[in-house]
Amino acid sequence: MIIVIKPHATQSQIDEVTAEVEKLGYTPHTISGALQTVVAAIGDETTHHTLESLNALAQVERVLPVQKRYKLASRESHPQPTVIDVDGVPMGGAALAVIAGPCSVESADQLLATARAVKAAGATLLRGGAYKPRTSPYEFQGLGKEGLRLLRAAKEETGLKIVTELLSEYDADIVAETADMLQIGARNSQNFRLLVAAARTGKPILLKRGMSQRIEEWLLSAEYILSSGNPNVMLCERGIRTFETYTRNTLDLAAVAAAKSESHLPVIVDPSQGCGRADLVPALCAGAVALGADGLIIEVHPNPAEALSDGQQQVDFGMFRQLMAGLEPFLKAVNKPGIHAASGSLATFDAASASA
Amino acid sequence: MIIVIKPHATQSQIDEVTAEVEKLGYTPHTISGALQTVVAAIGDETTHHTLESLNALAQVERVLPVQKRYKLASRESHPQPTVIDVDGVPMGGAALAVIAGPCSVESADQLLATARAVKAAGATLLRGGAYKPRTSPYEFQGLGKEGLRLLRAAKEETGLKIVTELLSEYDADIVAETADMLQIGARNSQNFRLLVAAARTGKPILLKRGMSQRIEEWLLSAEYILSSGNPNVMLCERGIRTFETYTRNTLDLAAVAAAKSESHLPVIVDPSQGCGRADLVPALCAGAVALGADGLIIEVHPNPAEALSDGQQQVDFGMFRQLMAGLEPFLKAVNKPGIHAASGSLATFDAASASA
Amino acid sequence: MIIVIKPHATQSQIDEVTAEVEKLGYTPHTISGALQTVVAAIGDETTHHTLESLNALAQVERVLPVQKRYKLASRESHPQPTVIDVDGVPMGGAALAVIAGPCSVESADQLLATARAVKAAGATLLRGGAYKPRTSPYEFQGLGKEGLRLLRAAKEETGLKIVTELLSEYDADIVAETADMLQIGARNSQNFRLLVAAARTGKPILLKRGMSQRIEEWLLSAEYILSSGNPNVMLCERGIRTFETYTRNTLDLAAVAAAKSESHLPVIVDPSQGCGRADLVPALCAGAVALGADGLIIEVHPNPAEALSDGQQQVDFGMFRQLMAGLEPFLKAVNKPGIHAASGSLATFDAASASA
Amino acid sequence: MIIVIKPHATQSQIDEVTAEVEKLGYTPHTISGALQTVVAAIGDETTHHTLESLNALAQVERVLPVQKRYKLASRESHPQPTVIDVDGVPMGGAALAVIAGPCSVESADQLLATARAVKAAGATLLRGGAYKPRTSPYEFQGLGKEGLRLLRAAKEETGLKIVTELLSEYDADIVAETADMLQIGARNSQNFRLLVAAARTGKPILLKRGMSQRIEEWLLSAEYILSSGNPNVMLCERGIRTFETYTRNTLDLAAVAAAKSESHLPVIVDPSQGCGRADLVPALCAGAVALGADGLIIEVHPNPAEALSDGQQQVDFGMFRQLMAGLEPFLKAVNKPGIHAASGSLATFDAASASA
Repeated sequence: MIIVIKPHATQSQIDEVTAEVEKLGYTPHTISGALQTVVAAIGDETTHHTLESLNALAQVERVLPVQKRYKLASRESHPQPTVIDVDGVPMGGAALAVIAGPCSVESADQLLATARAVKAAGATLLRGGAYKPRTSPYEFQGLGKEGLRLLRAAKEETGLKIVTELLSEYDADIVAETADMLQIGARNSQNFRLLVAAARTGKPILLKRGMSQRIEEWLLSAEYILSSGNPNVMLCERGIRTFETYTRNTLDLAAVAAAKSESHLPVIVDPSQGCGRADLVPALCAGAVALGADGLIIEVHPNPAEALSDGQQQVDFGMFRQLMAGLEPFLKAVNKPGIHAASGSLATFDAASASA
Repeated sequence: MIIVIKPHATQSQIDEVTAEVEKLGYTPHTISGALQTVVAAIGDETTHHTLESLNALAQVERVLPVQKRYKLASRESHPQPTVIDVDGVPMGGAALAVIAGPCSVESADQLLATARAVKAAGATLLRGGAYKPRTSPYEFQGLGKEGLRLLRAAKEETGLKIVTELLSEYDADIVAETADMLQIGARNSQNFRLLVAAARTGKPILLKRGMSQRIEEWLLSAEYILSSGNPNVMLCERGIRTFETYTRNTLDLAAVAAAKSESHLPVIVDPSQGCGRADLVPALCAGAVALGADGLIIEVHPNPAEALSDGQQQVDFGMFRQLMAGLEPFLKAVNKPGIHAASGSLATFDAASASA
Repeated sequence: MIIVIKPHATQSQIDEVTAEVEKLGYTPHTISGALQTVVAAIGDETTHHTLESLNALAQVERVLPVQKRYKLASRESHPQPTVIDVDGVPMGGAALAVIAGPCSVESADQLLATARAVKAAGATLLRGGAYKPRTSPYEFQGLGKEGLRLLRAAKEETGLKIVTELLSEYDADIVAETADMLQIGARNSQNFRLLVAAARTGKPILLKRGMSQRIEEWLLSAEYILSSGNPNVMLCERGIRTFETYTRNTLDLAAVAAAKSESHLPVIVDPSQGCGRADLVPALCAGAVALGADGLIIEVHPNPAEALSDGQQQVDFGMFRQLMAGLEPFLKAVNKPGIHAASGSLATFDAASASA
Repeated sequence: MIIVIKPHATQSQIDEVTAEVEKLGYTPHTISGALQTVVAAIGDETTHHTLESLNALAQVERVLPVQKRYKLASRESHPQPTVIDVDGVPMGGAALAVIAGPCSVESADQLLATARAVKAAGATLLRGGAYKPRTSPYEFQGLGKEGLRLLRAAKEETGLKIVTELLSEYDADIVAETADMLQIGARNSQNFRLLVAAARTGKPILLKRGMSQRIEEWLLSAEYILSSGNPNVMLCERGIRTFETYTRNTLDLAAVAAAKSESHLPVIVDPSQGCGRADLVPALCAGAVALGADGLIIEVHPNPAEALSDGQQQVDFGMFRQLMAGLEPFLKAVNKPGIHAASGSLATFDAASASA
């Protein structure tokens, strides 16, 4: 760490800092600048006591960390990109992974119709919330166990892998029985106990970025899962909260490139949450692919206007088919061979089959 | 709800909207404006299906909710301010409640020394994290059960009531055995299952505002607790995340007045988290009192420079005494009689006793 | 506008609102809902007195505008996309327009070398600040008139069109003599007098989005230019200010699709300012093209490490050539025929010519 | 500056950095840490070339500035608080300065009535916009020169000093003829040419913080004025733009204490813009005084519901009288003797006189 001393500090004040640095296990190294002194504290920041508390000293202006705070998630620790196996579907590899399905599981009909439609259009994983984190307690909270049952039935019929959200530590085992990949939602991105509980199921984890989470903090949330012994973490950019109100969130597509540069973990994009408007979803999918996203998670509903949650951001079957067909030239542009089909083979992807 | 139709929509497109409104249980009322048509959907928005999904229709420009989404938390439902009894200490009443103590419980010595000091200066409740939500898994995670034991010992000696954070649904019972008030931290402000688990312990709840939570959403998080049958919720403004980096968060003091106007629940302020800098804490305490806060929660440490977490925002004993003495004229200005002592009697509050 | 009346308002309070609405020239239309009354005020919001001031009445809960506030900038007023002619280079048409050059004009050598390099790689317009808006008065403020002279010389040699920033009303004429397109920077996006002064030069305007400007407000800034009689406005998304610190700004690529949907004006992207890091620029360029941007403005410097301003976000000549070559497949994916060459012909765009 | 080198950089890459540091005029000092090397560049950062461009080198992870970027605005350069004389009214001294008046000057009657009312309640300066920066070109733009004439007439009658906004460099002289203090609005806080033009009039400047301006950047805007030879700068916190929508802006009251700690300049608060809601203005005034503000600028209108701009945030005469009377105990709490009357004498300030 670098400790910046205020201008006009006395030598004894500087000595107090270096003594404290030594006491906390680092080797201090004092550099007297033109106007200010800085103390470099040499030692591994991830194994020593933090020095940020030195800010409490009156003569200290700032404490600047030098090292990155994440290890297992970093590119340096693992230069090759990680590919995650989700019950046979690789994520983070050569092809694009498309997870699609309704915001919430609402009924057998709604889910099955959607599963068939997204499969026909090339998706290989089915999303659908059985437990829903809703801002108000009076909003639809999901079908719970019945929702899980419907997801299993949809998998049985279509072969699509299941991605569904885990809301509660108590539900970790029961949700993991159904899910091929557990989703941790944005509101729980720093619910560290839930991260650990999810990690311990052994299932791959889809980790959404929190609404006000910096990229560094997002990777540290991933670090909680990785350091709990579960190496299968996939990051998901889903929009951050800003002052803009035209879109529900501001999709930070630069974060895709940033996360892939800083980390070896696969990164996907949720354009539905990311903008909260179905009309912008196709353009954001194209942008995500162009920026190197490893996958997409897209909300699809048979009749969005009547959806029990977030209809405004769900595309209908026709829009989804078009959207998937429209991705083809962008996949070529990034040298991705296509979209993974459930069996691991690549889906054929021409307009004809997409509209079949 | 008000559904704004796009300009140039056809009559049949408008009819489609009104039909949908009826189908979802509302009575539509069409108003043709100068350039645009709006449909007012009449019905109780809290008991009907949401109409926000109507945004999915191409001819709909926007859907504007009319009613407030919270009920039990609202002033309308409960015009008198709520006073919460925390093991004999009233919060939200005539006097100011001061919760003080270390960010983390670090040791018996550290906690007891702090408890004695904050009591001597007039605090009536002791804070201290036994379970700590830390951004990195490599940071100090708290002493856990041993931390709870130390908190009980400190209460036994000093009589201070205990406020400590609940991080996990699994720990609800064990933490509730020690805590007189359970804290839900900012990172868990929309961890709805934890809110419900905390509510069910029957203990009063201190609900921090999330880092990117709008006031409406914060009150809806309170609504989760209230609608679970626990009426004892106290709101805590602790700073929101913005672009400013001089302070760790931006303390939104207007939110204190806003929350007290919208809701009957008591509202306190956490200036320590709110700015992340000990030097600004005293001024923010004065501001919070002036704006009508019902209490303060302040981080105090015997030696902040060596604190295991967040030393830069913790005040030492001398600063805390000064800060408390300095609040006296502001308490007079807002007609608060003083600060609640543990027995419910008011602490005497002159500089002499404060520095005793 | 829709005026939402508070619950429990009396009839005479409602009458006061409708009387005020009439007085301000609208026709009131009262709708009594299940729990609340709303008053629809019928009249053209763009030609009448605002009703937002009615929020001042105690019985009014909220005033919701219905109409969009921009007219000339809107798609409704002008369904076809606008193509701007910048001294022979069309912007907003079939091809992608690439503006490239140094952040600041620093010297004849630096500018000419850069102009040659960006032309060789396919750019058709040259950027370069002669007047620089710098956060600190002690930072390099640009070469001023000498900078303009160097830009003219670079145009003379290379034929590249000149895009340069206007900082002061006083400089409008002198900058317009050199510039083929005047840039209004993010810090001046709501400097309405400068917008009007720029408009009056008759030159096409590149209007950057302000750092905290909502899309609606950005279009209203464009409306200032359009309503001053200058139809040639091009919007530029350049990143908004958020809590994220990994990037200098958060590039809001959804705003490209949003602005193109709401408005007929061409929209370009500034990835250099947008992220503040040269390493992310190529990925953001690809994303911008995929999202439908009409052009790019990219900072290029012969030796970024020694740049007098913002070196960290400037790419060098080699990176720029690679970046341009890398855009080719994305141009194909969006059916753009290529990049406009200065003469209006399309640049050939294969890796071989790009590295020539 | 501190240059953090990436882990695993080679010695020759480190040498390249130190060579560059020397070339740019600093003395490099290399410190090899446990895992990473840092180079301290010793030299006065305010007189040397920036090193931030070194981020452009691949082996550089980050460049951390050490020194503060503002000089004349800093406490270090000027330990005593600055008191500004506004035509006889001291600002930044012992007493609180209250600037009050309408958002916009609308008519002789409106302005004079307001001037009389605010004077009677204790204000010593009159605000009122003659030139208004409005988000839309279709909104009321102010009365211009006629507005200035009305302000002069109001001053003649009441003796109140005039504070009014400067929007255009061209208007600097004409506005300075009328204004005793020139206001630079939030939208122009980084319109550096306007800052300099305002400075050169010699009038005291009220500098509002920009909507997305960090405290450091705000002080650097002040530095533009100070370094242009005008020492009379007063800072005004007026709310920053965040995700919250309950209030129009988020008033950052901690910034008052921060700015007063970092700088010697007086700091006032604009609660009207700061929250955009008249109902919260009185509480925010109390908070501002408690936090040490040197003054307040408050919007007052005879009939806010019919105001031509921002009625929702303007208080009426009765509310203003109450608000002023309500400040008295807070002034006592901060040891301020009262509010400056126009003559420099202190206004008497009991409820009786306030309601006279």
